[in-house]
Amino acid sequence: MTTRVEVDLGERSYPIFIGPDVGVEQNLISSTVQSDTIVIISNDIVAPLYLSRIRDQFNSRNCLELILPDGEAHKTLGSFERIMTFMLEHRVDRSATIVALGGGVIGDLAGFAAASYQRGIAFAQIPTTLLAQVDSAVGGKTAVNHPLGKNMIGAFYQPCAVFADTRTLATLPDRELSAGLAEVIKYGLIRDREFLKWIDINLDDLLKRDDDALTFAVQRSCENKAVVVHEDEREQGNRAILNLGHTFGHAIETAQGYGNWLHGEAVGAGTCMALRMSHRLGWLDEVDMKWGIDLLKRANLPTRAPRDMGTDDFMQLMARDKKNIGGKIRLVLLTDIGAAVVTGDYDAGALSATLAEERARS
Amino acid sequence: MTTRVEVDLGERSYPIFIGPDVGVEQNLISSTVQSDTIVIISNDIVAPLYLSRIRDQFNSRNCLELILPDGEAHKTLGSFERIMTFMLEHRVDRSATIVALGGGVIGDLAGFAAASYQRGIAFAQIPTTLLAQVDSAVGGKTAVNHPLGKNMIGAFYQPCAVFADTRTLATLPDRELSAGLAEVIKYGLIRDREFLKWIDINLDDLLKRDDDALTFAVQRSCENKAVVVHEDEREQGNRAILNLGHTFGHAIETAQGYGNWLHGEAVGAGTCMALRMSHRLGWLDEVDMKWGIDLLKRANLPTRAPRDMGTDDFMQLMARDKKNIGGKIRLVLLTDIGAAVVTGDYDAGALSATLAEERARS
Repeated sequence: MTTRVEVDLGERSYPIFIGPDVGVEQNLISSTVQSDTIVIISNDIVAPLYLSRIRDQFNSRNCLELILPDGEAHKTLGSFERIMTFMLEHRVDRSATIVALGGGVIGDLAGFAAASYQRGIAFAQIPTTLLAQVDSAVGGKTAVNHPLGKNMIGAFYQPCAVFADTRTLATLPDRELSAGLAEVIKYGLIRDREFLKWIDINLDDLLKRDDDALTFAVQRSCENKAVVVHEDEREQGNRAILNLGHTFGHAIETAQGYGNWLHGEAVGAGTCMALRMSHRLGWLDEVDMKWGIDLLKRANLPTRAPRDMGTDDFMQLMARDKKNIGGKIRLVLLTDIGAAVVTGDYDAGALSATLAEERARS
Repeated sequence: MTTRVEVDLGERSYPIFIGPDVGVEQNLISSTVQSDTIVIISNDIVAPLYLSRIRDQFNSRNCLELILPDGEAHKTLGSFERIMTFMLEHRVDRSATIVALGGGVIGDLAGFAAASYQRGIAFAQIPTTLLAQVDSAVGGKTAVNHPLGKNMIGAFYQPCAVFADTRTLATLPDRELSAGLAEVIKYGLIRDREFLKWIDINLDDLLKRDDDALTFAVQRSCENKAVVVHEDEREQGNRAILNLGHTFGHAIETAQGYGNWLHGEAVGAGTCMALRMSHRLGWLDEVDMKWGIDLLKRANLPTRAPRDMGTDDFMQLMARDKKNIGGKIRLVLLTDIGAAVVTGDYDAGALSATLAEERARS
């Protein structure tokens, strides 16, 4: 059974199809993506598993394929240029559609390529990781990394459709499943206490990759994200709550070198830091803080920053965060489970203490 | 006296200020561009002439300056990356405004950088060539070149304001003034017969750089462009008429190497080819064809393609044009002076004959 979630953005609205049959359902993908020329962009891990299935759906079309090396280390301007060259060499015109088949790296990279190729062509997302299905494939944030910061070069550019085939999660490494759960738990923490309760009860089923549990988790995550993005597509304000744990997390990713910590792992540790800081500020009860940290731990995520990162490392890297305005580090913090704020207006001592605690822990 | 033309694009609307006092008028630029951080991007020809004047207007702000080498050869992804690195090194945040001070290359490059830096920050255009003032600075087309084609990587991204200081045209080399006139004449040819008559009468004043004549030519060109862009911002249809002569012209620029022929020069020769082909198809009277060619010639523009380009060269390069759909080369052609169409529906023999004529001429 396939579930459908709508992202309502006026003329840029699009559907998200979710379920274990999305990848095989007759005509679902091919009738939604109608271009004569299809450019499938994937990576060398996902392509051997799923590319032929997708290619078959476009059997009478002009179907081009570009397989990039897997991993965050390749989410660069260099890979972006490689896609541009590939499409120009094949004389791809503006009527084509790019289909991103893979995780967040492929989606972000292919999305920015779609946004920029001849000033913009259509693209569709077929996310194959839990993290991409619940987060990065939805909402139109595309980007590549720069050595000085993550996702610093990109565009807001919406896909024409997202196909979340939950059956592709069967082949996902355990670490990546956990990384996706960090974002699932995030939705509960920032705006959906009921969902957090559901996650608490169903976490073991999610870890066992139960189809129904995964489909519901993806659906409810996408519903939450769709509402936030509908209200603030270009992150002028409240959309930034989706970045809970990401300011600390991006600092961890950058410091460790892209790909050594998975994005979701860094977000897991970063979310624990945000929970601790929210509690330290007196905004969040101890029991709620512990509930959040415990869920992340049960999802097999790191709950602490890497040992070799000091306060200065964090401060320097966080100073480059996209949310900052006028030199002030803005953070997503919780005032309750299900209630987040984006603010630079907090006691600076609480931030220092939170960072110092990571280092000081035994 | 400063003239103001509005580009009406809903929430992306913006003003164009035109005239000889735009660069010195008290508070005009500084009150329109309000960010605390200003990143001025210019080139090594324009910066020594005009940068200090602009910098002075932002005297109490955090004003960063990046000076790039002049010329179309530098409108590359490499220069784009250099801008990104510069801004990240200086910890420029999303509240900053990029100010593009220069011709079309700087405007297109800085505009794409503004569109992509942290997924989009504000930018203002201060075009210092006639071509940029009448065309490239207005309408939100930003891009860099790829070795396989011009403007192939970019975005539709509108500035927050355009400041066309016609006095900067005093220092413009003659060749560049003529290149700009190619686009001025274009507006008359595609949609404004009255303006073409005015150009015919005032061409000598324009070549002598008379302030009033230049201001009027820039104003009328911008008014024409504003209407076309208002009706079709993302070039889904009629906006492509602004590309009269550009399909042939881009082929010339690419074949000759960017910068050896100025863009406007290539457009001048390309427009003559489009006029000849329109006449060959029986769509345009001989007298009108000759009128157009004669005006371009009087503006000191080339009226023929370079001798070393054959039919195959053109066909191969034109096959990559962004307007093409389904392998068909779409061209902007005239059905009358002041009436243009974008079409792939023409007698292919007329195209071959037009290309052959360039080669065969004595």
